[in-house]
Amino acid sequence: MTNVKHFEDFAVGDVIQGQSATVTEAQILDFAWAWDPQPFHTSIPAAEASHFNGLVASGFQTLALTFRLVWQASPWQATNIGGHGIDAIRWPRPVRPGDTLTAQAEVLELTPSRSKPFGTARIRYSAVNQDGAEVMTAEMLQIITKRPSD
Amino acid sequence: MTNVKHFEDFAVGDVIQGQSATVTEAQILDFAWAWDPQPFHTSIPAAEASHFNGLVASGFQTLALTFRLVWQASPWQATNIGGHGIDAIRWPRPVRPGDTLTAQAEVLELTPSRSKPFGTARIRYSAVNQDGAEVMTAEMLQIITKRPSD
Repeated sequence: MTNVKHFEDFAVGDVIQGQSATVTEAQILDFAWAWDPQPFHTSIPAAEASHFNGLVASGFQTLALTFRLVWQASPWQATNIGGHGIDAIRWPRPVRPGDTLTAQAEVLELTPSRSKPFGTARIRYSAVNQDGAEVMTAEMLQIITKRPSD
Repeated sequence: MTNVKHFEDFAVGDVIQGQSATVTEAQILDFAWAWDPQPFHTSIPAAEASHFNGLVASGFQTLALTFRLVWQASPWQATNIGGHGIDAIRWPRPVRPGDTLTAQAEVLELTPSRSKPFGTARIRYSAVNQDGAEVMTAEMLQIITKRPSD
């Protein structure tokens, strides 16, 4: 973490370029079996017979992966102390085995707490696949610490 | 699945009582290491030093677990064919090792497709812990197939 930022160091419009990762068939099957056992996420023949025409990743997996790809590259690894929630998650197209996702985040809104040593940042996450097509967008409400007072 | 329902079989206000599950320390640590490696999810000492005063589950884990606890008990195991997204996820209090979550879902809104053999259901999910206190709420937009035409 060469680049630690506190709440006051962010501005609306700041963009954090996240990392990339290739999603494997095994990752999709393993995640789904534990966390989202719908047939089109857990069974290749069932997925082929579905309207997806093949295996697709759970949206929960895409969400967590996108958050992690940004977090690993973010300046809030030491200053993000939690989250209130997430608004407006959308999955415009499926994630399939072999897809490589690249994540990005943009600061939309910054609301400092009046009395407490943190603020809430509304941060828009997005992930695109290897063709540059969006597979997910979401707005996360993150709690980020202010600078330690002198 | 003794109780398969299609899109036309649901009404606004229908409640689906989900199952319950106890969350373990190992589950929290394993999930976090793979999908949400923030220190207060992956390290017991770091979590004790944080404002959480101890290990807490990733919100992504709570989300997926809540969805699964409902899905396993739901009448849409064969008819839910995907999801557009999720709105308004909130985590009002943390999930800790040993907590037992019970999930529930309520149908908020039903929008049939005019031309296609499915509709979109806005379904409110909630999970409470063993004290009856809410740990998560969310509104999922699920795509549910209509009855096969005769």
